[in-house]
Amino acid sequence: MFESAELGHTIDKATFREEVPKLRAALLDAQFELRENGKFPVVILVSGVDGSGKGETINVLYEWMDPRYLSTLAFSAPSDEERERPYMWRYWRALPPRGRTGVFAGSWYSDPIRDRILGQIDKGDLDQRMDQINRFEAMLVNEGALVLKFWFHLSKDGQRQRLKAMEKDPRTAWRVTKESWARLKTYEQLQEAAGHVLRMTNTPWAPWIVVEGTDDRYRSLTVGKVILEAMQKRLADKREQHYPVAPPLAPKIDQLDVLTSLDLTLKLEHKAYEMQLARWQGRLSELVRHPEFKKHSLIIAFEGSDAAGKGGSIRRITAAMDARQYQIIPVAAPTEEERAQPYLWRFWRHIPHNGRVAIFDRTWYGRVLVERVEGFCAEADWLRAYTEINDFEHELHKDGAIVVKFWLQISDKEQLKRFKEREKIDFKRFKITEEDWRNREKSEAYHAAVCDLVDRTSTSTAPWTLVEANDKSFARVKILRTLCERLENALNTEKPKAKATVKDK
Amino acid sequence: MFESAELGHTIDKATFREEVPKLRAALLDAQFELRENGKFPVVILVSGVDGSGKGETINVLYEWMDPRYLSTLAFSAPSDEERERPYMWRYWRALPPRGRTGVFAGSWYSDPIRDRILGQIDKGDLDQRMDQINRFEAMLVNEGALVLKFWFHLSKDGQRQRLKAMEKDPRTAWRVTKESWARLKTYEQLQEAAGHVLRMTNTPWAPWIVVEGTDDRYRSLTVGKVILEAMQKRLADKREQHYPVAPPLAPKIDQLDVLTSLDLTLKLEHKAYEMQLARWQGRLSELVRHPEFKKHSLIIAFEGSDAAGKGGSIRRITAAMDARQYQIIPVAAPTEEERAQPYLWRFWRHIPHNGRVAIFDRTWYGRVLVERVEGFCAEADWLRAYTEINDFEHELHKDGAIVVKFWLQISDKEQLKRFKEREKIDFKRFKITEEDWRNREKSEAYHAAVCDLVDRTSTSTAPWTLVEANDKSFARVKILRTLCERLENALNTEKPKAKATVKDK
Repeated sequence: MFESAELGHTIDKATFREEVPKLRAALLDAQFELRENGKFPVVILVSGVDGSGKGETINVLYEWMDPRYLSTLAFSAPSDEERERPYMWRYWRALPPRGRTGVFAGSWYSDPIRDRILGQIDKGDLDQRMDQINRFEAMLVNEGALVLKFWFHLSKDGQRQRLKAMEKDPRTAWRVTKESWARLKTYEQLQEAAGHVLRMTNTPWAPWIVVEGTDDRYRSLTVGKVILEAMQKRLADKREQHYPVAPPLAPKIDQLDVLTSLDLTLKLEHKAYEMQLARWQGRLSELVRHPEFKKHSLIIAFEGSDAAGKGGSIRRITAAMDARQYQIIPVAAPTEEERAQPYLWRFWRHIPHNGRVAIFDRTWYGRVLVERVEGFCAEADWLRAYTEINDFEHELHKDGAIVVKFWLQISDKEQLKRFKEREKIDFKRFKITEEDWRNREKSEAYHAAVCDLVDRTSTSTAPWTLVEANDKSFARVKILRTLCERLENALNTEKPKAKATVKDK
Repeated sequence: MFESAELGHTIDKATFREEVPKLRAALLDAQFELRENGKFPVVILVSGVDGSGKGETINVLYEWMDPRYLSTLAFSAPSDEERERPYMWRYWRALPPRGRTGVFAGSWYSDPIRDRILGQIDKGDLDQRMDQINRFEAMLVNEGALVLKFWFHLSKDGQRQRLKAMEKDPRTAWRVTKESWARLKTYEQLQEAAGHVLRMTNTPWAPWIVVEGTDDRYRSLTVGKVILEAMQKRLADKREQHYPVAPPLAPKIDQLDVLTSLDLTLKLEHKAYEMQLARWQGRLSELVRHPEFKKHSLIIAFEGSDAAGKGGSIRRITAAMDARQYQIIPVAAPTEEERAQPYLWRFWRHIPHNGRVAIFDRTWYGRVLVERVEGFCAEADWLRAYTEINDFEHELHKDGAIVVKFWLQISDKEQLKRFKEREKIDFKRFKITEEDWRNREKSEAYHAAVCDLVDRTSTSTAPWTLVEANDKSFARVKILRTLCERLENALNTEKPKAKATVKDK
């Protein structure tokens, strides 16, 4: 892995002086084109052993490129807002939008490598985390990002010499801390852990570029040229960027599927409804105030056909909670800032911290529902979305989030009835739009999309609950009960006590 | 202040049941119209004594209105990301965009009132903070926001009774804490402090609505009706919203002004430049690594005519710093999310935390420069911007930020020369656009705008430095020297030691 980076590469001053002006002009031009074209972001990771010139290289990039369209994010200890959310949240919020370049000093690799060296995780854990990183980077690349991962290498002797030299120079002495010297002692462990990490994550879509860190001129010139060539190549490539994705899904050869097998005649009489509603709302309000819930968050996803009763169901949930504890996120067309980011970014930004509840009215499943059916995105994009969504929910789950997903299903006849009722009401907010009627016509395509979605994204950590919603009362109670059961499981609480069910007697 | 809220208002069940459905439907319609029209946000503050029904009222609003377009933000202890920035930053980031309603449970009033009751600030401090709040709210209203400030009042007896009743009910018992009872003991202090605060901030543009909190039905109905009427009235009002602003500024009756009196022949020879550049860059790099700087942040604002050399100057500054410590913010056209917020929001979001540096390439002065000259905003809007900008910078300063503002001035002749030089270079990034030429034609209008800007916004806490920039070397050194001097002053460091100036000998 590191052999070519121990050969003692150097570049003499004269060559450097001759090369830099050309390189600089070309980099500035490439950056300008990137901005004008605005089609992809450049993500640069700068990593490596201590004293290998990470900081110096970043400073050189700022000298050579247009610093207005570069941003550097240095990741050290997470802030409390970050600690209360999944591990990747802080990196998601730092992603550069299309047209810009983001330099990551410290990245999603730093913690796993450190944890492994300190013996806090075993090799199996490390591999799991590398797998997760590979999936994340694949997503970035599929979303169009140019990902360049640099690893600056030093031999052990080389590192000792660099640290000594830096310590002597008053301009760099401050960079050398006690920790730097301590890390020299763990050189072998770092090499072993890093070697393994680099091998595991040396993917075709985001390979590592290992650079010898000893000679400043060699290192700078190498990094500059790699960035330039990668950008130029990518700017010249007019093809759509698609990572190969296998074509669909099992063909449908009979009428039996997860939706047609729902019993839409299920009903709840008024009195039973009132009783059960009170019972489960009471239970829910206890559960979200449970001390154990402070270590979790609750993420509720609502999908369903138009007029299936999402809004009414959400109201029945929020009635059981304090408004200061939850946030409802209505998902509509993405904003300009959201469009400049990977698809899931617009959902990541709303991920609640521990002890809080986020209710999504329509969700990240838009890509495999409306975008798939209406052709708003390429087939390759919605096909890969299933995997990305599973990864996303898995990550939320791993961090302690309780992810509960509802699909509200009504019959075509019931939907027609509700549309007609709404048309009679003159409340402005109930206007049925042309689009609603159009969606109805595509109901077969939507039906297939929903079946695929359930098959592909109902996981043990984030299962789908299909809700028979022709009867609103039945649907609302089923939703509340499911929520309570999922919370009870996750919080390891006992079943409801007498007090909670008193209204049920 | 509180007299009308101690009369024992109650609403009987029958009246309530009759009124609510109408109110609800009307509220939903108003909310729908607000969303469609998208012209202004509604900002609702819910405040008052403990047990007066703040939480209950917010929950009622969620029941009555469309919860998808409401957001509630409960402010308790600030997160570390918030603590490291000016006091108002957390409220700025929580402002609802146009078309939405934001409910603030706890607001910019909470801390000043609490600090006053605990005796941590005196009456003078309190008044200063109220003045600052008045200015902030005036800004919100001028930006179009509908600001509704509710204060729920209870007599002392009333408060005791409410707390007892809440404690008895299992659904609300959790709301009553030891602190609630403790606060009953400081009832008089709260009344006094709150009374003073309400009087000071009872402005014509954002008056307080004091509501008796004893009876749930009365309180809910009152709040609902106030919100509805305010929204309806505002939606029906098609006039532009403008707070009266006095017309301009001293007329110009001779040729002498802050720009014409600059000596643009000032120059620095190459050798002196090299020496001084190294000297001040060295000093700057020391200052931003000074332990004292961890309590401050540095905000550098660059303005100037086109081709005045902002980019080159910024490069000379960043060369002295670690890329992980600063961020450059190029200010261009606002994004969609930024356009949905008050003007200054797009700058607030980039305010650095302590120990860090933000460099703005073009700034919040755009409003009184390009927007004024090109007529992109109404006269009343740019006229009030001077005050708002001064308030903004004052707030940054109060929090420890060091705000340094540069205007780079070149002669018309020098600008023409630089434009022509650029046209010869074939770097894409140096293309001179039609707009650049157009701006040149308006140079007189810009000249006047710059003079007004200096007169109106050069304050002792955030003074302007006008830079004679015909000679790039002179300009760069003056900028670096000014930065160092401002930092030295703020950090209370001694003058540069021998070591720092060694290159200068």
